Amino acid sequence: MPARDSYHDSVKHALMKAGWTITHDPLRLSWGGKDMYVDLGAERLLAAERAGQQIAVEIKSFTNASEMNDLEQALGQYLVYRAVLAENEPNRRLYLAIPNSVLVNVFEEPLGQLLRKTYPVALVGFNPTTEEIVQWLPRID
Amino acid sequence: MPARDSYHDSVKHALMKAGWTITHDPLRLSWGGKDMYVDLGAERLLAAERAGQQIAVEIKSFTNASEMNDLEQALGQYLVYRAVLAENEPNRRLYLAIPNSVLVNVFEEPLGQLLRKTYPVALVGFNPTTEEIVQWLPRID
Repeated sequence: MPARDSYHDSVKHALMKAGWTITHDPLRLSWGGKDMYVDLGAERLLAAERAGQQIAVEIKSFTNASEMNDLEQALGQYLVYRAVLAENEPNRRLYLAIPNSVLVNVFEEPLGQLLRKTYPVALVGFNPTTEEIVQWLPRID
Repeated sequence: MPARDSYHDSVKHALMKAGWTITHDPLRLSWGGKDMYVDLGAERLLAAERAGQQIAVEIKSFTNASEMNDLEQALGQYLVYRAVLAENEPNRRLYLAIPNSVLVNVFEEPLGQLLRKTYPVALVGFNPTTEEIVQWLPRID
């Protein structure tokens, strides 16, 4: 299993505060003999609808020297996992969890907007200090 | 400008042998104030049609310890460049150049096939020893 991202526990706590139950830590994916580990799997039961929402969450800190390298690496990993998840568990949606400051500085800038328009990337911004979810892009309700 | 891939000259020679003229080394892309450098830009004039074919070529050696990391990183970088190229130069096609042994071992295996089916990745396999192009996927004529 790969090394845990330094924000692993922050995101876990933030999801739990927001009503999610952590069901997988990590979530294993497999395709053609290759194993992959998404950081977290989580589930939420909506009282009103009695329908379970399932997500997978890959956490990235964007702490490397090059923001472009971080972006390319995060996008590549997300899209590999997304392709496999769509085959293995089509009802589980994959989110890329990043500090909300990164979401604003990288993904709301022109290049980030172009990438979000071109590829199916879902984001969740969290506050590492308060351990709270700040926003889901696209929204999840 | 980023460090050159170790196979840079091999690919350059292979393209020239195959009738391409290297027009950019590297090819600069820009979007929203961010600069990116694709390894090579090349052009070929077809005598019969008098139409120039233009390509951009990003070279990856896949020499890291983890094949999965190499794959994620190459895919992410390719898809970032592709999105920007589609805006800047829509007639120039982007290829990911990799040793043909990597093309066979990674991209013709189940995970690689799934990724090629899911995302618009064009590949060119080269032989680093003979410095020849082995195959284009999809074919280019």
